[in-house]
Amino acid sequence: MSLPTKVSIVEVGTRDGLQNEKQYITPEDKIRLLDTITDAGVRRIEVTSFVSPKHVPQLRDAQEVLAGCKRSPDAEYEALVPNVRGMERALECELDGVMLFVAASETFNQKNIRASRETMLGVAREVARMALDAGLKLRGGVVAAFGCPYEGRISDEDVEWIVGEYVDMGCGEIGLADTVGMTNPAEIKRLTTYIREKFPSVRYALHLHNTRGAGLANLLAGLEVGIDTFDASIGGLGGCPFAPRATGNIASEDSINMLHEMGIETGVDLPKLLEAVAHAEKILDRQLPGQLLHAGIPDWEMAS
Amino acid sequence: MSLPTKVSIVEVGTRDGLQNEKQYITPEDKIRLLDTITDAGVRRIEVTSFVSPKHVPQLRDAQEVLAGCKRSPDAEYEALVPNVRGMERALECELDGVMLFVAASETFNQKNIRASRETMLGVAREVARMALDAGLKLRGGVVAAFGCPYEGRISDEDVEWIVGEYVDMGCGEIGLADTVGMTNPAEIKRLTTYIREKFPSVRYALHLHNTRGAGLANLLAGLEVGIDTFDASIGGLGGCPFAPRATGNIASEDSINMLHEMGIETGVDLPKLLEAVAHAEKILDRQLPGQLLHAGIPDWEMAS
Repeated sequence: MSLPTKVSIVEVGTRDGLQNEKQYITPEDKIRLLDTITDAGVRRIEVTSFVSPKHVPQLRDAQEVLAGCKRSPDAEYEALVPNVRGMERALECELDGVMLFVAASETFNQKNIRASRETMLGVAREVARMALDAGLKLRGGVVAAFGCPYEGRISDEDVEWIVGEYVDMGCGEIGLADTVGMTNPAEIKRLTTYIREKFPSVRYALHLHNTRGAGLANLLAGLEVGIDTFDASIGGLGGCPFAPRATGNIASEDSINMLHEMGIETGVDLPKLLEAVAHAEKILDRQLPGQLLHAGIPDWEMAS
Repeated sequence: MSLPTKVSIVEVGTRDGLQNEKQYITPEDKIRLLDTITDAGVRRIEVTSFVSPKHVPQLRDAQEVLAGCKRSPDAEYEALVPNVRGMERALECELDGVMLFVAASETFNQKNIRASRETMLGVAREVARMALDAGLKLRGGVVAAFGCPYEGRISDEDVEWIVGEYVDMGCGEIGLADTVGMTNPAEIKRLTTYIREKFPSVRYALHLHNTRGAGLANLLAGLEVGIDTFDASIGGLGGCPFAPRATGNIASEDSINMLHEMGIETGVDLPKLLEAVAHAEKILDRQLPGQLLHAGIPDWEMAS
């Protein structure tokens, strides 16, 4: 199979990236990051999450940030919505799409949301109806599809069940998530191909974490089975609550650089995006896991 | 093409990994690292380098370290040898193999060794003769084969020239190096395949750096064209003198974990190898770039 010639990077830095940061990042700083990301030509941005402000205080400013960030007509602005109350808040904002959220692992749901998968699927179905009624695009996110920090291996049937429910709810896109960076390229190819053959009518995205260093190898594996949409965060923002010193999402700039070097188009102005990475490092006052800011974009035509 | 079922990781942590460390690591600590690496079942170890002690004081203890480290009958112990003086010192030690060293880039050779490629090839030929006379295995290392920090793109003809010389000198293995981590999976596949078709009689290894985060993706690309030998360093030890805050070699433990997860055998006891990584972090008093020590080996069979 030939590789996709164009890839969409879904920037999740201000959502997945920031949600585990203890230090509160002001709406002004979030908006500045988002505006630079928009200016860099990123076509899809998961801006924030309408989780309970009590549970994730970092994202309590979801509405303010969505109201304040600039919009490009070429980009889509999305948010994670875990429940009906969140969807009510989301409907007060200007949004292009909504991400639903259910883990393929029963224990992950119980420990993180204190609800069963059955219950969460029921909630997701209500949220989906509200979002579709409002004309929004829908992605169904399958958390821990490639492995669970509590249960270990997740059966294909469990993933298939959640995806089937999402397809039935009207999701146009399914996001398969390696939430704690446990998977490997062979499994990326196997499970993604298996699920896509079961449900061929929808689009697929991969949500990859670099927790064990294999993030871009997993991205490559996804490309090799035809996946053209990947979540990533500027600087590799975002930690792993299950391994405090491990890294989080794959870094947008490292992913985009690899894609560009392979001749795959993303539409992103990489030097501009690095401005957002540098700003994120300044706000958080530490070096982030993304490599490109410090290594530099390769210069192939330099004079000797 | 199906992937190799077995892969050799060549541990280069105490050579490439340490050579840029300003803090001198004592022979005792180097030997303790090496002994743990041997105990972990690593089958090839590039122990040290016989460069001038004046130029690389960190490795001035090459003979002492080679004399002191334990040997496994299943493992090969190798050293980098840049010149005849170095080979004379190497011949006083117990060694299984020698790595030769010429950059495909003229400027890289001039700036780093103050010699032309022609001159260095002449020196390598003398070293090769001495090594073969002593019954040692020979790898020809093509530095900056996938890109040069001074010249940018390197022509296929330049790489082909160096490899051809090495084959003529009697090297049984060619190591193609992405010395400053500039390359990408597509180029790994293209250049490796091109060179192997030109010189099919020798074995090939890839020396990869994770400078821009694509190290394990490049390893995967190598696997996919049938390469089964990769250099790596414990903890991702080793920086990049051209980008002071960037990372160095691909991390052995992250590479081996990905291979094991893919069902590819390396012979390495990963928990044991992590002891060497932890010891390296203790010696250097900082967190190294390798992820696995902090994220943990995935546990697939845990109870829910």
